Amino acid sequence: MSSPEIDALSQALSRLPGLGPRSARRAVLHLLKRREIALKPLIAALQAVEENLATCDICGNVDTANPCGVCTDPRRDAKLLCVVEEVADLWAMDRARLFPGRFHVLGGRLSALEGVGPGDLSIAPLMARVNAGGIEEVVLAMNATMEGATTMHYLAERLADCGVSVTQLAHGVPVGGELDYLDEGTIAQALRARRPVA
Amino acid sequence: MSSPEIDALSQALSRLPGLGPRSARRAVLHLLKRREIALKPLIAALQAVEENLATCDICGNVDTANPCGVCTDPRRDAKLLCVVEEVADLWAMDRARLFPGRFHVLGGRLSALEGVGPGDLSIAPLMARVNAGGIEEVVLAMNATMEGATTMHYLAERLADCGVSVTQLAHGVPVGGELDYLDEGTIAQALRARRPVA
Ligand SMILES: [Zn+2]
Ligand SMILES: [Zn+2]
Repeated sequence: MSSPEIDALSQALSRLPGLGPRSARRAVLHLLKRREIALKPLIAALQAVEENLATCDICGNVDTANPCGVCTDPRRDAKLLCVVEEVADLWAMDRARLFPGRFHVLGGRLSALEGVGPGDLSIAPLMARVNAGGIEEVVLAMNATMEGATTMHYLAERLADCGVSVTQLAHGVPVGGELDYLDEGTIAQALRARRPVA
Repeated sequence: MSSPEIDALSQALSRLPGLGPRSARRAVLHLLKRREIALKPLIAALQAVEENLATCDICGNVDTANPCGVCTDPRRDAKLLCVVEEVADLWAMDRARLFPGRFHVLGGRLSALEGVGPGDLSIAPLMARVNAGGIEEVVLAMNATMEGATTMHYLAERLADCGVSVTQLAHGVPVGGELDYLDEGTIAQALRARRPVA
Protein backbone atom coordinates (compact mmCIF):
# COMPACT_ATOMS: atom_id res chain seq x y z
CA MET A 1 0.00 0.00 0.00
CA SER A 2 2.90 2.30 -0.68
CA SER A 3 1.85 3.75 -4.01
CA PRO A 4 0.46 7.29 -3.86
CA GLU A 5 -2.45 6.36 -6.15
CA ILE A 6 -3.53 3.51 -3.87
CA ASP A 7 -3.13 5.65 -0.76
CA ALA A 8 -5.22 8.39 -2.35
CA LEU A 9 -7.98 5.94 -3.24
CA SER A 10 -7.90 4.48 0.24
CA GLN A 11 -8.30 7.96 1.71
CA ALA A 12 -11.10 8.91 -0.67
CA LEU A 13 -13.03 5.77 0.27
CA SER A 14 -12.39 6.19 4.00
CA ARG A 15 -14.25 9.52 3.85
CA LEU A 16 -17.49 7.77 2.88
CA PRO A 17 -19.91 7.34 5.77
CA GLY A 18 -19.73 3.79 7.10
CA LEU A 19 -16.17 3.13 5.89
CA GLY A 20 -13.27 3.65 8.30
CA PRO A 21 -9.59 3.48 7.33
CA ARG A 22 -9.42 -0.31 7.76
CA SER A 23 -12.55 -1.14 5.81
CA ALA A 24 -11.44 1.35 3.15
CA ARG A 25 -8.19 -0.61 2.73
CA ARG A 26 -10.18 -3.84 2.40
CA ALA A 27 -12.44 -2.18 -0.16
CA VAL A 28 -9.39 -1.01 -2.15
CA LEU A 29 -7.93 -4.50 -2.19
CA HIS A 30 -11.32 -5.91 -3.20
CA LEU A 31 -11.35 -3.50 -6.15
CA LEU A 32 -7.71 -4.08 -7.14
CA LYS A 33 -8.23 -7.82 -7.32
CA ARG A 34 -11.40 -7.42 -9.38
CA ARG A 35 -10.45 -4.86 -11.99
CA GLU A 36 -12.99 -6.00 -14.58
CA ILE A 37 -15.93 -7.04 -12.41
CA ALA A 38 -15.70 -4.46 -9.59
CA LEU A 39 -13.29 -1.58 -10.24
CA LYS A 40 -14.35 -0.70 -13.79
CA PRO A 41 -18.11 -1.09 -13.07
CA LEU A 42 -17.80 1.16 -10.00
CA ILE A 43 -16.02 3.84 -12.04
CA ALA A 44 -18.71 3.59 -14.73
CA ALA A 45 -21.52 3.80 -12.16
CA LEU A 46 -19.97 6.87 -10.52
CA GLN A 47 -19.43 8.57 -13.87
CA ALA A 48 -23.00 7.87 -15.01
CA VAL A 49 -24.30 9.54 -11.87
CA GLU A 50 -21.80 12.40 -12.00
CA GLU A 51 -22.63 13.24 -15.61
CA ASN A 52 -26.36 13.37 -14.99
CA LEU A 53 -26.52 14.72 -11.45
CA ALA A 54 -29.20 17.34 -10.93
CA THR A 55 -31.20 18.99 -8.17
CA CYS A 56 -34.92 18.82 -8.92
CA ASP A 57 -36.30 22.31 -9.60
CA ILE A 58 -39.68 21.27 -8.21
CA CYS A 59 -38.95 19.43 -4.97
CA GLY A 60 -35.20 19.79 -4.26
CA ASN A 61 -34.48 16.04 -4.52
CA VAL A 62 -31.10 15.02 -5.90
CA ASP A 63 -31.47 12.73 -8.91
CA THR A 64 -30.10 12.09 -12.38
CA ALA A 65 -33.18 13.72 -13.92
CA ASN A 66 -34.77 17.16 -13.51
CA PRO A 67 -37.65 17.11 -12.64
CA CYS A 68 -36.78 14.09 -10.52
CA GLY A 69 -38.23 10.60 -10.76
CA VAL A 70 -40.47 11.19 -7.75
CA CYS A 71 -42.03 14.35 -9.19
CA THR A 72 -42.66 12.76 -12.60
CA ASP A 73 -43.98 9.43 -11.27
CA PRO A 74 -47.62 9.35 -12.50
CA ARG A 75 -48.60 6.79 -9.85
CA ARG A 76 -48.03 9.31 -7.06
CA ASP A 77 -50.97 11.28 -5.66
CA ALA A 78 -50.40 14.96 -6.50
CA LYS A 79 -52.88 15.96 -3.79
CA LEU A 80 -50.49 14.77 -1.04
CA LEU A 81 -47.27 16.63 -0.28
CA CYS A 82 -44.70 15.57 2.32
CA VAL A 83 -42.25 18.28 3.48
CA VAL A 84 -38.86 17.08 4.76
CA GLU A 85 -35.72 18.81 5.96
CA GLU A 86 -33.11 17.08 3.81
CA VAL A 87 -32.78 14.86 0.73
CA ALA A 88 -31.71 12.04 3.07
CA ASP A 89 -35.10 12.31 4.77
CA LEU A 90 -36.92 12.12 1.44
CA TRP A 91 -35.02 8.92 0.66
CA ALA A 92 -35.75 7.53 4.12
CA MET A 93 -39.48 8.23 3.68
CA ASP A 94 -39.40 6.77 0.21
CA ARG A 95 -37.68 3.58 1.36
CA ALA A 96 -40.75 2.81 3.44
CA ARG A 97 -42.72 3.08 0.14
CA LEU A 98 -45.81 3.90 2.15
CA PHE A 99 -46.15 7.58 1.30
CA PRO A 100 -48.07 7.70 -1.98
CA GLY A 101 -47.64 11.44 -2.62
CA ARG A 102 -44.89 13.84 -3.57
CA PHE A 103 -42.18 15.59 -1.56
CA HIS A 104 -40.67 18.98 -0.85
CA VAL A 105 -37.13 19.32 0.50
CA LEU A 106 -36.54 22.40 2.67
CA GLY A 107 -32.75 22.08 2.59
CA GLY A 108 -32.41 22.37 6.37
CA ARG A 109 -34.32 23.53 9.41
CA LEU A 110 -34.84 26.86 11.16
CA SER A 111 -32.04 27.44 13.67
CA ALA A 112 -31.43 30.56 15.72
CA LEU A 113 -28.09 29.11 16.81
CA GLU A 114 -26.85 28.52 13.28
CA GLY A 115 -28.50 31.66 11.97
CA VAL A 116 -30.84 29.81 9.61
CA GLY A 117 -34.00 31.81 8.93
CA PRO A 118 -37.00 31.18 6.65
CA GLY A 119 -35.22 32.89 3.75
CA ASP A 120 -32.44 30.31 3.89
CA LEU A 121 -34.81 27.39 3.35
CA SER A 122 -36.93 26.40 0.34
CA ILE A 123 -40.08 27.85 1.93
CA ALA A 124 -41.09 30.38 -0.75
CA PRO A 125 -41.07 27.60 -3.39
CA LEU A 126 -43.14 25.45 -1.01
CA MET A 127 -45.74 28.19 -0.60
CA ALA A 128 -45.82 28.65 -4.37
CA ARG A 129 -46.45 24.93 -4.90
CA VAL A 130 -49.28 24.94 -2.36
CA ASN A 131 -50.79 28.18 -3.67
CA ALA A 132 -50.72 26.84 -7.23
CA GLY A 133 -53.55 24.55 -6.14
CA GLY A 134 -54.21 20.84 -6.43
CA ILE A 135 -52.64 19.94 -3.06
CA GLU A 136 -55.10 18.87 -0.35
CA GLU A 137 -52.82 17.72 2.47
CA VAL A 138 -49.34 18.80 3.51
CA VAL A 139 -47.55 16.34 5.82
CA LEU A 140 -44.84 18.12 7.83
CA ALA A 141 -42.26 15.36 8.35
CA MET A 142 -39.58 17.26 10.22
CA ASN A 143 -37.11 15.46 12.45
CA ALA A 144 -38.25 15.07 16.08
CA THR A 145 -35.70 17.60 17.31
CA MET A 146 -36.19 21.04 18.86
CA GLU A 147 -35.30 22.73 15.61
CA GLY A 148 -37.50 20.34 13.64
CA ALA A 149 -40.45 21.21 15.90
CA THR A 150 -39.76 24.94 15.51
CA THR A 151 -39.66 24.55 11.76
CA MET A 152 -42.86 22.51 11.77
CA HIS A 153 -44.80 25.07 13.79
CA TYR A 154 -43.52 27.91 11.62
CA LEU A 155 -44.66 26.07 8.48
CA ALA A 156 -48.01 25.13 10.01
CA GLU A 157 -48.67 28.81 10.67
CA ARG A 158 -47.66 29.83 7.14
CA LEU A 159 -49.88 27.09 5.67
CA ALA A 160 -52.87 27.76 7.95
CA ASP A 161 -54.73 29.97 5.49
CA CYS A 162 -53.92 28.07 2.32
CA GLY A 163 -57.00 25.84 2.42
CA VAL A 164 -54.98 22.64 2.84
CA SER A 165 -55.01 20.14 5.65
CA VAL A 166 -51.70 20.30 7.54
CA THR A 167 -50.59 17.15 9.37
CA GLN A 168 -47.52 15.94 11.21
CA LEU A 169 -46.03 12.49 11.78
CA ALA A 170 -47.46 10.66 14.76
CA HIS A 171 -45.50 10.08 17.88
CA GLY A 172 -43.54 7.00 17.11
CA VAL A 173 -40.53 8.92 15.91
CA PRO A 174 -38.30 8.81 19.00
CA VAL A 175 -37.50 12.16 20.61
CA GLY A 176 -34.20 13.37 19.19
CA GLY A 177 -34.47 10.78 16.46
CA GLU A 178 -33.61 11.55 12.87
CA LEU A 179 -35.69 9.99 10.12
CA ASP A 180 -32.76 8.79 8.12
CA TYR A 181 -31.66 6.51 10.96
CA LEU A 182 -35.07 4.90 11.58
CA ASP A 183 -36.20 1.53 10.36
CA GLU A 184 -39.02 1.38 7.84
CA GLY A 185 -41.49 -0.04 10.40
CA THR A 186 -41.20 2.99 12.67
CA ILE A 187 -41.60 5.37 9.75
CA ALA A 188 -44.61 3.43 8.47
CA GLN A 189 -46.31 3.52 11.88
CA ALA A 190 -45.63 7.23 12.30
CA LEU A 191 -47.07 7.89 8.85
CA ARG A 192 -50.24 5.84 9.43
CA ALA A 193 -50.97 7.66 12.70
CA ARG A 194 -50.25 11.16 11.37
CA ARG A 195 -52.51 13.87 12.84
CA PRO A 196 -53.26 17.57 12.30
CA VAL A 197 -50.67 20.00 13.67
CA ALA A 198 -52.00 21.34 17.02
CA MET B 1 -33.56 6.76 -5.43
CA SER B 2 -35.63 5.87 -8.43
CA SER B 3 -33.13 6.67 -11.19
CA PRO B 4 -31.41 3.65 -12.72
CA GLU B 5 -28.01 5.38 -12.52
CA ILE B 6 -28.35 6.00 -8.79
CA ASP B 7 -29.62 2.47 -8.17
CA ALA B 8 -26.69 1.05 -10.13
CA LEU B 9 -24.19 3.09 -8.11
CA SER B 10 -25.86 2.07 -4.88
CA GLN B 11 -25.57 -1.58 -5.89
CA ALA B 12 -21.94 -1.25 -6.98
CA LEU B 13 -21.04 0.31 -3.63
CA SER B 14 -23.02 -2.24 -1.62
CA ARG B 15 -20.79 -4.98 -3.07
CA LEU B 16 -17.73 -3.50 -1.36
CA PRO B 17 -16.73 -5.34 1.82
CA GLY B 18 -17.95 -3.40 4.85
CA LEU B 19 -20.80 -1.62 3.05
CA GLY B 20 -24.30 -3.09 3.23
CA PRO B 21 -27.29 -1.81 1.22
CA ARG B 22 -28.17 0.87 3.79
CA SER B 23 -24.68 2.28 4.23
CA ALA B 24 -24.26 2.17 0.44
CA ARG B 25 -27.33 4.40 0.09
CA ARG B 26 -25.89 6.80 2.67
CA ALA B 27 -22.58 6.79 0.78
CA VAL B 28 -24.39 7.56 -2.49
CA LEU B 29 -26.21 10.48 -0.92
CA HIS B 30 -22.95 11.71 0.61
CA LEU B 31 -21.40 11.66 -2.88
CA LEU B 32 -24.39 13.26 -4.61
CA LYS B 33 -24.39 16.18 -2.21
CA ARG B 34 -20.63 16.68 -2.60
CA ARG B 35 -20.11 16.49 -6.34
CA GLU B 36 -16.94 18.60 -6.40
CA ILE B 37 -15.27 17.62 -3.12
CA ALA B 38 -16.22 13.92 -2.90
CA LEU B 39 -17.74 12.45 -6.08
CA LYS B 40 -15.24 13.83 -8.63
CA PRO B 41 -12.18 13.15 -6.41
CA LEU B 42 -13.34 9.55 -5.85
CA ILE B 43 -13.76 9.01 -9.59
CA ALA B 44 -10.29 10.48 -10.20
CA ALA B 45 -8.72 8.30 -7.49
CA LEU B 46 -10.33 5.15 -8.89
CA GLN B 47 -9.25 6.01 -12.43
CA ALA B 48 -5.66 6.73 -11.37
CA VAL B 49 -5.48 3.30 -9.77
CA GLU B 50 -7.28 1.55 -12.62
CA GLU B 51 -4.99 3.02 -15.26
CA ASN B 52 -1.82 1.98 -13.45
CA LEU B 53 -2.88 -1.26 -11.84
CA ALA B 54 -0.30 -4.03 -12.06
CA THR B 55 0.66 -7.31 -10.43
CA CYS B 56 4.31 -7.27 -9.37
CA ASP B 57 6.35 -9.76 -11.42
CA ILE B 58 8.69 -10.32 -8.49
CA CYS B 59 6.44 -10.79 -5.45
CA GLY B 60 2.83 -10.96 -6.68
CA ASN B 61 1.76 -7.80 -4.84
CA VAL B 62 -0.91 -5.63 -6.48
CA ASP B 63 0.29 -2.08 -6.93
CA THR B 64 0.36 0.79 -9.42
CA ALA B 65 3.99 0.02 -10.25
CA ASN B 66 5.76 -3.14 -11.46
CA PRO B 67 8.02 -4.06 -9.71
CA CYS B 68 5.94 -2.91 -6.75
CA GLY B 69 6.85 -0.30 -4.16
CA VAL B 70 7.75 -2.95 -1.61
CA CYS B 71 10.20 -4.73 -3.92
CA THR B 72 11.91 -1.50 -4.96
CA ASP B 73 12.09 0.06 -1.48
CA PRO B 74 15.86 0.35 -0.79
CA ARG B 75 15.32 0.51 2.97
CA ARG B 76 14.05 -3.07 3.05
CA ASP B 77 16.42 -5.90 3.94
CA ALA B 78 16.76 -8.14 0.88
CA LYS B 79 18.05 -10.98 3.07
CA LEU B 80 14.64 -11.39 4.71
CA LEU B 81 11.69 -12.82 2.78
CA CYS B 82 8.17 -13.22 4.16
CA VAL B 83 5.88 -15.66 2.29
CA VAL B 84 2.13 -15.01 2.54
CA GLU B 85 -0.95 -16.60 1.04
CA GLU B 86 -2.70 -13.54 -0.39
CA VAL B 87 -2.06 -9.88 -1.22
CA ALA B 88 -4.39 -9.00 1.67
CA ASP B 89 -1.96 -10.77 4.01
CA LEU B 90 1.00 -8.83 2.61
CA TRP B 91 -0.86 -5.60 3.30
CA ALA B 92 -1.81 -6.78 6.79
CA MET B 93 1.84 -7.62 7.55
CA ASP B 94 2.94 -4.32 6.09
CA ARG B 95 0.46 -2.32 8.17
CA ALA B 96 2.29 -3.46 11.28
CA ARG B 97 5.42 -1.89 9.69
CA LEU B 98 7.55 -4.26 11.74
CA PHE B 99 8.74 -6.62 9.02
CA PRO B 100 11.79 -4.98 7.47
CA GLY B 101 12.22 -7.42 4.56
CA ARG B 102 10.46 -8.27 1.33
CA PHE B 103 7.44 -10.45 0.53
CA HIS B 104 6.29 -13.27 -1.70
CA VAL B 105 2.60 -13.85 -2.40
CA LEU B 106 1.63 -17.46 -3.09
CA GLY B 107 -1.79 -16.59 -4.45
CA GLY B 108 -3.59 -19.09 -2.22
CA ARG B 109 -2.93 -22.15 -0.10
CA LEU B 110 -2.70 -25.89 -0.79
CA SER B 111 -6.14 -27.45 -0.56
CA ALA B 112 -7.08 -31.03 -1.35
CA LEU B 113 -10.75 -30.08 -1.06
CA GLU B 114 -10.53 -27.24 -3.57
CA GLY B 115 -8.04 -29.12 -5.74
CA VAL B 116 -5.25 -26.58 -5.25
CA GLY B 117 -1.83 -28.19 -5.69
CA PRO B 118 1.71 -26.78 -5.63
CA GLY B 119 1.52 -26.02 -9.36
CA ASP B 120 -1.42 -23.69 -8.79
CA LEU B 121 0.52 -21.46 -6.41
CA SER B 122 3.50 -19.17 -6.98
CA ILE B 123 5.93 -21.74 -5.55
CA ALA B 124 8.29 -22.19 -8.51
CA PRO B 125 8.94 -18.41 -8.57
CA LEU B 126 9.53 -18.53 -4.81
CA MET B 127 12.12 -21.30 -5.19
CA ALA B 128 13.78 -19.33 -7.98
CA ARG B 129 14.03 -16.23 -5.79
CA VAL B 130 15.55 -18.24 -2.94
CA ASN B 131 17.93 -20.15 -5.23
CA ALA B 132 19.11 -16.92 -6.82
CA GLY B 133 20.89 -16.25 -3.52
CA GLY B 134 21.05 -13.30 -1.17
CA ILE B 135 18.15 -14.45 1.03
CA GLU B 136 19.12 -15.69 4.50
CA GLU B 137 15.76 -16.19 6.19
CA VAL B 138 12.35 -17.14 4.84
CA VAL B 139 9.43 -16.40 7.19
CA LEU B 140 6.45 -18.61 6.38
CA ALA B 141 3.52 -16.41 7.40
CA MET B 142 0.61 -18.63 6.42
CA ASN B 143 -2.78 -18.25 8.06
CA ALA B 144 -3.27 -20.36 11.21
CA THR B 145 -5.71 -22.68 9.45
CA MET B 146 -5.40 -26.36 8.58
CA GLU B 147 -4.65 -25.51 4.96
CA GLY B 148 -2.22 -22.79 5.99
CA ALA B 149 -0.33 -25.29 8.16
CA THR B 150 -0.26 -27.85 5.32
CA THR B 151 1.10 -25.20 2.97
CA MET B 152 3.71 -24.13 5.52
CA HIS B 153 5.01 -27.65 6.07
CA TYR B 154 5.15 -28.30 2.34
CA LEU B 155 7.17 -25.12 1.81
CA ALA B 156 9.44 -25.85 4.78
CA GLU B 157 10.31 -29.19 3.19
CA ARG B 158 10.96 -27.65 -0.20
CA LEU B 159 13.16 -24.97 1.39
CA ALA B 160 15.05 -27.34 3.71
CA ASP B 161 18.05 -27.80 1.42
CA CYS B 162 18.33 -24.23 0.16
CA GLY B 163 20.74 -23.07 2.83
CA VAL B 164 18.28 -20.55 4.27
CA SER B 165 16.81 -20.35 7.74
CA VAL B 166 13.08 -21.14 7.58
CA THR B 167 10.88 -19.68 10.31
CA GLN B 168 7.20 -19.42 11.08
CA LEU B 169 5.13 -16.91 12.98
CA ALA B 170 4.95 -17.54 16.73
CA HIS B 171 1.83 -18.68 18.43
CA GLY B 172 -0.06 -15.55 19.02
CA VAL B 173 -2.01 -15.83 15.81
CA PRO B 174 -5.26 -17.34 17.09
CA VAL B 175 -6.15 -20.79 15.77
CA GLY B 176 -8.40 -20.36 12.74
CA GLY B 177 -7.44 -16.71 12.62
CA GLU B 178 -6.66 -14.96 9.37
CA LEU B 179 -3.90 -12.37 9.30
CA ASP B 180 -5.91 -9.77 7.52
CA TYR B 181 -8.38 -9.60 10.41
CA LEU B 182 -5.77 -9.25 13.18
CA ASP B 183 -4.76 -6.05 14.89
CA GLU B 184 -1.21 -4.78 14.40
CA GLY B 185 -0.23 -5.65 17.98
CA THR B 186 -0.97 -9.34 17.54
CA ILE B 187 0.90 -9.45 14.25
CA ALA B 188 3.87 -7.62 15.78
CA GLN B 189 4.04 -10.02 18.72
CA ALA B 190 3.79 -13.06 16.46
CA LEU B 191 6.58 -11.67 14.29
CA ARG B 192 8.91 -10.91 17.20
CA ALA B 193 8.52 -14.45 18.60
CA ARG B 194 8.90 -16.22 15.26
CA ARG B 195 10.73 -19.55 15.48
CA PRO B 196 12.19 -22.20 13.15
CA VAL B 197 9.67 -24.54 11.52
CA ALA B 198 9.74 -27.82 13.50
ZN1 LIG C 1 -38.61 16.37 -7.67
ZN1 LIG D 1 6.81 -6.71 -5.52
